[in-house]
Amino acid sequence: MIVKKGSARVDRVSPFYVMDIMSRAKTLESKGRHIVHMEVGEPDFSTPQPIVDAGVDFLKKGDVHYTEAQGLLALREKIAEFYTQQYNVKVSPERIFITPGASGALTVALATLIDAGDDVLMAAPGYPCNSNLIGLLGGVSCFIEASEDDNFQLNAASIASAWGDCTRGVMLASPSNPVGSMVDGETLKEIIQTIDERNGFLISDEIYHGLVYEERAVSALEFSDDVFVINSFSKFFGMTGWRLGWVIVPEHAMGAANRLMQNLFIAAPTHSQFAALAAFSGETKDILLQRCDEFKQRRDVLYDGLIELGFKVPVNPEGAFYIYADCSAFTNDSYAFALDLLEQVGVAVTPGLDFGMTYAERYLRFAYTTSIEEIKQGLEQLALYIDSRAK
Amino acid sequence: MIVKKGSARVDRVSPFYVMDIMSRAKTLESKGRHIVHMEVGEPDFSTPQPIVDAGVDFLKKGDVHYTEAQGLLALREKIAEFYTQQYNVKVSPERIFITPGASGALTVALATLIDAGDDVLMAAPGYPCNSNLIGLLGGVSCFIEASEDDNFQLNAASIASAWGDCTRGVMLASPSNPVGSMVDGETLKEIIQTIDERNGFLISDEIYHGLVYEERAVSALEFSDDVFVINSFSKFFGMTGWRLGWVIVPEHAMGAANRLMQNLFIAAPTHSQFAALAAFSGETKDILLQRCDEFKQRRDVLYDGLIELGFKVPVNPEGAFYIYADCSAFTNDSYAFALDLLEQVGVAVTPGLDFGMTYAERYLRFAYTTSIEEIKQGLEQLALYIDSRAK
Repeated sequence: MIVKKGSARVDRVSPFYVMDIMSRAKTLESKGRHIVHMEVGEPDFSTPQPIVDAGVDFLKKGDVHYTEAQGLLALREKIAEFYTQQYNVKVSPERIFITPGASGALTVALATLIDAGDDVLMAAPGYPCNSNLIGLLGGVSCFIEASEDDNFQLNAASIASAWGDCTRGVMLASPSNPVGSMVDGETLKEIIQTIDERNGFLISDEIYHGLVYEERAVSALEFSDDVFVINSFSKFFGMTGWRLGWVIVPEHAMGAANRLMQNLFIAAPTHSQFAALAAFSGETKDILLQRCDEFKQRRDVLYDGLIELGFKVPVNPEGAFYIYADCSAFTNDSYAFALDLLEQVGVAVTPGLDFGMTYAERYLRFAYTTSIEEIKQGLEQLALYIDSRAK
Repeated sequence: MIVKKGSARVDRVSPFYVMDIMSRAKTLESKGRHIVHMEVGEPDFSTPQPIVDAGVDFLKKGDVHYTEAQGLLALREKIAEFYTQQYNVKVSPERIFITPGASGALTVALATLIDAGDDVLMAAPGYPCNSNLIGLLGGVSCFIEASEDDNFQLNAASIASAWGDCTRGVMLASPSNPVGSMVDGETLKEIIQTIDERNGFLISDEIYHGLVYEERAVSALEFSDDVFVINSFSKFFGMTGWRLGWVIVPEHAMGAANRLMQNLFIAAPTHSQFAALAAFSGETKDILLQRCDEFKQRRDVLYDGLIELGFKVPVNPEGAFYIYADCSAFTNDSYAFALDLLEQVGVAVTPGLDFGMTYAERYLRFAYTTSIEEIKQGLEQLALYIDSRAK
């Protein structure tokens, strides 16, 4: 067999270190060990019943053909309505593209916007797929080191000072992964002005909107129509495995987005789209708001517990379901710490390395995507482990 | 509002001319006109009941979480078994990646293999998304003009003579779209040898396997493990809207394919994967084979009808569900012909332009994805139209 080399592009895609954790956790579980899972970026809740019922009703008709590339008009109309209710903004359904998850939305937005050699600004730490997708497309991710002082978020000043000759635009996530911090309305407005003055683009990742615990989340669409907004049915709506998200594009990008949808995906899954028609009902909303309360309670338990154990948590998360905790009191190698923590006491967390190189070795991400009972047990195990290291 | 330019990459993605046809057909239908649809590359049959039932059963449990990035092991095992039964080849489930449709499979294969500036050989006419995806990735599609003499397919000689300094590999589809012609085993073996001697790659698009009417379809895996094989649950298995396909990669590409899956898709739709577990049952197979018979009957009716009307059909299709018909007896502008045909007598077909520039203006693609009754009516309308043009 002749071994052929793969593309150089693939080498620009980093592996996920958490995969080592997940794979080892699986092995331990298969041997009967109980593992507390705080590594998973996926709500533990099942899909709300009204959405499941809508999916079942649709499937029973057996007519699972392609939708139009852009997605069902009825669903895009519901999303448009959601923007009016939630943010008081008017979005034409023509600007909304239903995608296979937010992953598909990110690919469509980035492919519409960047060419090889283009620079894109983003905060570090951040969601690793962003820079990986940019790398796949031959672009360059330019990280703005975020810190406690700026709530681990971008702002107009940091964007202006990082802007270079090859910079084409900015990716922003609020609430963010892994920190869970948010950008307020005033800051977002200034960011958009700063980008507009430089004739750049903004991709606003709003997939954790809805899962917020203090202030309401502000959409970039409240300040401009000339932005790309990414959202998803996965997180707030509890539809991860259904692979459904959306991207809202400016008018001038509608043609390009449509061609990309046709070629990259043909369309998003039809049964998922029909099920999602029930995602905006009052009944579903009640379920989702109750879950949001539960997430807040979990956050409080986990935050207090980590602080008590001696972790430093620079930002008490305002949204999403992660706590990014500084473990430098215990280790200067968070990846080794995570592996050992799993091995010794059965607690799975994500090492900082998965969110870029900034402070990576000092940080761990704890996801509160498991029950309060499990979180409490995880904290107890963590206490045991820290205790054993101190000896 | 500042108008920002999109990426140059998007300009390398051609629009689908058939969209004009479909959109106009929709408008006419909304006014009460009956349209015979022979433009659609999607089987009219609904998803086989055992698959739908499996999907419903799975959804009722409500647990629609992510699967692993590579896809459900149980499904990959069933696919591996299918290769043993169908082609008498052994494929490890580790080499199988479940993707969001064959579109996702093509993206994974191409991103694994090509960098900007790389040339890829393929037959023209061919499936337009192939060259569009290559263009999105900065690669260059090099078309080998196929003709009646070579059954509208590639062969070792045409590949060897087209191979250039920047050529990295070949995309081959058998049965092909739009022609429906196949590559026989001996030819495929020679093609693989020719590519191997040049240290290139082969992406073998086998999505119409199963839908064959004369000889059995031969898989590239029968001759080499060092090939990328694309397949899909959409066409033969009747699962278009479920968005599920797969790619089989050589061992040396497994790591790259896994990283791409994680970043581009997270995973294929979970409910579709569980439903597809029923795609290989005996009960489903009986339904599918019966449909295959029906497709063959449709082909015969459409082929005979087109010949009788004066179309030239260089290849009586051996597989898939299209007839690529030379309409030069009637027009030298097949796009205008298609638009007028729809307008005057309500028959929708796809203009040759959608399959590359080779002979495009002389050809139309007729899809036999509608009932024999409808096909017969379409032929009658077509006769009326041709008659009226002659006057």
